[in-house]
Amino acid sequence: MRERLVTISDLVANSIELATRAFNESDVALAETVIAEDDRIDELVLSLDELAINILARQQPVARDLRIVVSALRISASLERMGDMSSHIAQLARYRYPDKVVPKGLRSTFAEMGRLDVGMARKLTELLRTEDLDLAEEIRNDDDDIDDLHLKVFDKVLGETWKGAAVDTVDATLASRYHERFADHAVSIAKKVQYLATGDWVVPAS
Amino acid sequence: MRERLVTISDLVANSIELATRAFNESDVALAETVIAEDDRIDELVLSLDELAINILARQQPVARDLRIVVSALRISASLERMGDMSSHIAQLARYRYPDKVVPKGLRSTFAEMGRLDVGMARKLTELLRTEDLDLAEEIRNDDDDIDDLHLKVFDKVLGETWKGAAVDTVDATLASRYHERFADHAVSIAKKVQYLATGDWVVPAS
Repeated sequence: MRERLVTISDLVANSIELATRAFNESDVALAETVIAEDDRIDELVLSLDELAINILARQQPVARDLRIVVSALRISASLERMGDMSSHIAQLARYRYPDKVVPKGLRSTFAEMGRLDVGMARKLTELLRTEDLDLAEEIRNDDDDIDDLHLKVFDKVLGETWKGAAVDTVDATLASRYHERFADHAVSIAKKVQYLATGDWVVPAS
Repeated sequence: MRERLVTISDLVANSIELATRAFNESDVALAETVIAEDDRIDELVLSLDELAINILARQQPVARDLRIVVSALRISASLERMGDMSSHIAQLARYRYPDKVVPKGLRSTFAEMGRLDVGMARKLTELLRTEDLDLAEEIRNDDDDIDDLHLKVFDKVLGETWKGAAVDTVDATLASRYHERFADHAVSIAKKVQYLATGDWVVPAS
């Protein structure tokens, strides 16, 4: 199950890397690729969930093993949503093509949000592979930076110097929300790995 | 577990009813109530999840019983997110107070979205209580109406007659997204109840 989670997390990391590039560079062909490949992530998540249910039925795990299986079900659900967020970011690029989707004045902010999301997804894959809890801490810190940038987008859009049209405001609002939610899911998974490793019984819901 | 899901779903239905009223009437006191009571939903979700894990460990259910427990874990996660969406809608009303949060030209659209979300949450509670699958179908149909209204919000905001400031555009975008996500989670739960009742093995992830 760990191998499968690592595989899915790796696909999600590739997906957000391509999605943020498609978004920042208004690359519609790349956006199409991201959107099409989200189905692959969904299939692998479904297949992992079936494996988990089969393990519960046949091996009837208890204690730590049981917690790992239940956590894997939750982690897979978060990874699936991360794939959806990548896809949503790519869709924004596609909707606005041939116009640029990133509003003027926010290019560097979204470039930084994208860089952080990609970095978090890469760290998450490593965390799932190695259970190196330092990575979980790094992911939580990265999320604080994402939250700061998310607020910065709204400061910009609601500030007196904002000259964007309504379409720019909508794009900025949605894109920022998707980047921020992607990061939230990464933190949610990192917390679950921490809980598992430290032996607390309660698995956080989100 | 069913009783607990019904209790949580009932709280979520009350939450969205008050949240949409707070939003549509810019009632900040009501918004505060909704935000404060979301903690109660989160606690009950956590408690249900602990019960589910205990049942898996002690009773080692198989076949349909196992699927019910796994589904309950997923349903509780969706209910928790529905509570979050209520809270987000209430927060929008609080942020803009004493200004009105609902942009001009969209009052009737958001009133209708709110009415649909509340109706879906009430039907969901009944569906969980009774397993009356007609309700699951109704919920899926209501979601189509919500999706139409979601598109209508963007048509309005991106249309030539839109005179809203950036803050109105941001509020309309976020509020519409939260209403639409609330409905998505209701559909996700309705599908799980359908799958359980019809005996398909695969539990959909979302």
